[in-house]
Amino acid sequence: MTTQAQTPASPASPAGLEGVTAGNSSLSRVDGTAGHLYYCGYPIEPLAEAGTFEECVYLLWNGELPNAAQLAEMKAQLTADEKVPTEIWDLLRPLAARNMSLMDLLRTGVSALAAFDDEVATTREDVDGRMEIERRVANRVMAKMGPLVTGAYRLQKGQEPLATKAELSMAGNFLYTLTGEVPGEYEERIFDAALTLHADHGFNASTFAARVTSATESDIYCAITAAIGCLAGRLHGGANMRVMRMLEEIGEVENAEAFVDAILAKPKGRVMGFGHRVYKVEDPRATVLRRMADELTKSSGNAKWFQMSRKVEDRVKERKGLAPNVDFYSASVYGSLGLDPEIFTPIFAVSRASGWLAHVLEQHADNRLIRPRANYIGSPERAHVPLAQR
Amino acid sequence: MTTQAQTPASPASPAGLEGVTAGNSSLSRVDGTAGHLYYCGYPIEPLAEAGTFEECVYLLWNGELPNAAQLAEMKAQLTADEKVPTEIWDLLRPLAARNMSLMDLLRTGVSALAAFDDEVATTREDVDGRMEIERRVANRVMAKMGPLVTGAYRLQKGQEPLATKAELSMAGNFLYTLTGEVPGEYEERIFDAALTLHADHGFNASTFAARVTSATESDIYCAITAAIGCLAGRLHGGANMRVMRMLEEIGEVENAEAFVDAILAKPKGRVMGFGHRVYKVEDPRATVLRRMADELTKSSGNAKWFQMSRKVEDRVKERKGLAPNVDFYSASVYGSLGLDPEIFTPIFAVSRASGWLAHVLEQHADNRLIRPRANYIGSPERAHVPLAQR
Repeated sequence: MTTQAQTPASPASPAGLEGVTAGNSSLSRVDGTAGHLYYCGYPIEPLAEAGTFEECVYLLWNGELPNAAQLAEMKAQLTADEKVPTEIWDLLRPLAARNMSLMDLLRTGVSALAAFDDEVATTREDVDGRMEIERRVANRVMAKMGPLVTGAYRLQKGQEPLATKAELSMAGNFLYTLTGEVPGEYEERIFDAALTLHADHGFNASTFAARVTSATESDIYCAITAAIGCLAGRLHGGANMRVMRMLEEIGEVENAEAFVDAILAKPKGRVMGFGHRVYKVEDPRATVLRRMADELTKSSGNAKWFQMSRKVEDRVKERKGLAPNVDFYSASVYGSLGLDPEIFTPIFAVSRASGWLAHVLEQHADNRLIRPRANYIGSPERAHVPLAQR
Repeated sequence: MTTQAQTPASPASPAGLEGVTAGNSSLSRVDGTAGHLYYCGYPIEPLAEAGTFEECVYLLWNGELPNAAQLAEMKAQLTADEKVPTEIWDLLRPLAARNMSLMDLLRTGVSALAAFDDEVATTREDVDGRMEIERRVANRVMAKMGPLVTGAYRLQKGQEPLATKAELSMAGNFLYTLTGEVPGEYEERIFDAALTLHADHGFNASTFAARVTSATESDIYCAITAAIGCLAGRLHGGANMRVMRMLEEIGEVENAEAFVDAILAKPKGRVMGFGHRVYKVEDPRATVLRRMADELTKSSGNAKWFQMSRKVEDRVKERKGLAPNVDFYSASVYGSLGLDPEIFTPIFAVSRASGWLAHVLEQHADNRLIRPRANYIGSPERAHVPLAQR
């Protein structure tokens, strides 16, 4: 509420701001027509297949890929910040016992973590060096996202959270602190690639929620709790879990085509995991995940979910001409890794947190309040009638 | 991620979506040129001066003012839902002991309350009767906002939260559960009017954050935690506290003009509480609050903050031609009521929650994902270089 001038309202924008460019960003570029996605100019395919999630986080936060020394420094900082205070587990334990969802536990945990960050209050003020402080806050939140999710999952099962291992990557630690077993190299690598592929995607809804929230000059904990809540919705991060529930419902590979046909026979019937607001052609993240899932299931022998996904994909393509999106193949990848569908959306949150944080830092580096107008369609002016006369 | 077609991106919108109409709403109409604000067609002046906050909540949630029977039913429902579970206080107590801010405690408390709502999970699905269930969830959240704020405030001071009294209004209960004393009639009335005046204001940033969050079909707890975090920023809800800090810094009425002059002598010097992105003329809420503050301070004898505000207002008007906004006069009203500036923004949240909830209900009644585009201004496409070669 600090600006003075008034701009006349524009004609109503397309519903849901579809196709409206809401601001500038140097982070990811989505080419929906050709089906390409870039982070800071790099195509995602080599970032996912030849790089690591830590390199991706560094890239999004710095605009350049790290050299070995820079990467080692970042890993050391993340490792130093990974430990979730025991007070947070004490706070989440009774909520987990009430069957609170993992996304709700994550949102509450991140919100509560603000009390353990001695620097966050400073980032709410217009002080010198604020951006450097905010980068440290971002590192703290990023480091704890995975441990918070796996710890909350274990609390739900009546188990205690596990401490991370300094020698493991973020992907490795996620799988280790979830199961108590250090993952195989191939499992770690595909999971790492999935984290990279989900890290950023323009002004998707949760990222936009983080930017709107932080543009009032509120802090990173405010922005990330907002983004987690936004991602939780079934039209956004909730989709990959729903794809897996669909695969479970199909049950056997040979049922796939009939299942698709039955959905499409219904009015407004939609198969989960197809089509995307931005991609006209296949979502490039789905392409990478399909290729990696093919390799994973050949090596693990657990090919059921992947084969079923191929059948569903072929049938939907044949019947509707629609291509799968990232949610469709992340479901079969995570399913083939033996992960519980309830943790799919939280995994998305762990990955996307890197992008959310990059966007908050970008927003704050050149901030302007995001405050659009509403197109009023309600009652015309009318005279007030006192309660006694109603 | 459920839509199929692709719309070409529009030219870049004005920064911060200023002047861009981002969607339809039947709730409030802001006439920034003439300086009027309407809720569902009714000018805010009689709603604030002749009505109650409960009537205002009913109006925003139903589109019509209630009759006596409807109002009594709503009050009974709010009273039934006011009690904050003791588990929430147990969860917030250690965070309050760590000096967590009130807005952070409120955000965490609302987030955690989701675990105590047996119906919220249903509202995340596309089920029959969802909107009716969501209205019950909205009522639960609305009823607990005031008690959460006052209870958290008391925890910060090492005191225990107080239970509400069924015979008091929401405004009365706020002041009672804060201080342990039932407020005088006049204090209750002006506080009630302030709640009404802050209830809704088009697509302000926090309301827009709530809509973006809920438009993924996420639930009310997700939307309200997002909105609280957004309101916390100093460019939004944090402004009224900062106005009061300024008044405290001025110290004495006779210092006001020199203080204003000293700020305006600085490059980019701005006096808190003046100007507004939407209002070209005086914010009509400031007009009502000034009138009520004048009466309040005449009756209470505690006129210092109000007189100082008048001096600041006159000087800023004279020097810069700027009119005060709602934050400017809510500060002197709350200050004259003896309230701690730390609770000013949380009070704004209690009031605005009525609008946030109305907007989430409106969004869900005719939902569409809010997902704009970013205007990419980063590095052009470049070839990936493996880590070993960097």
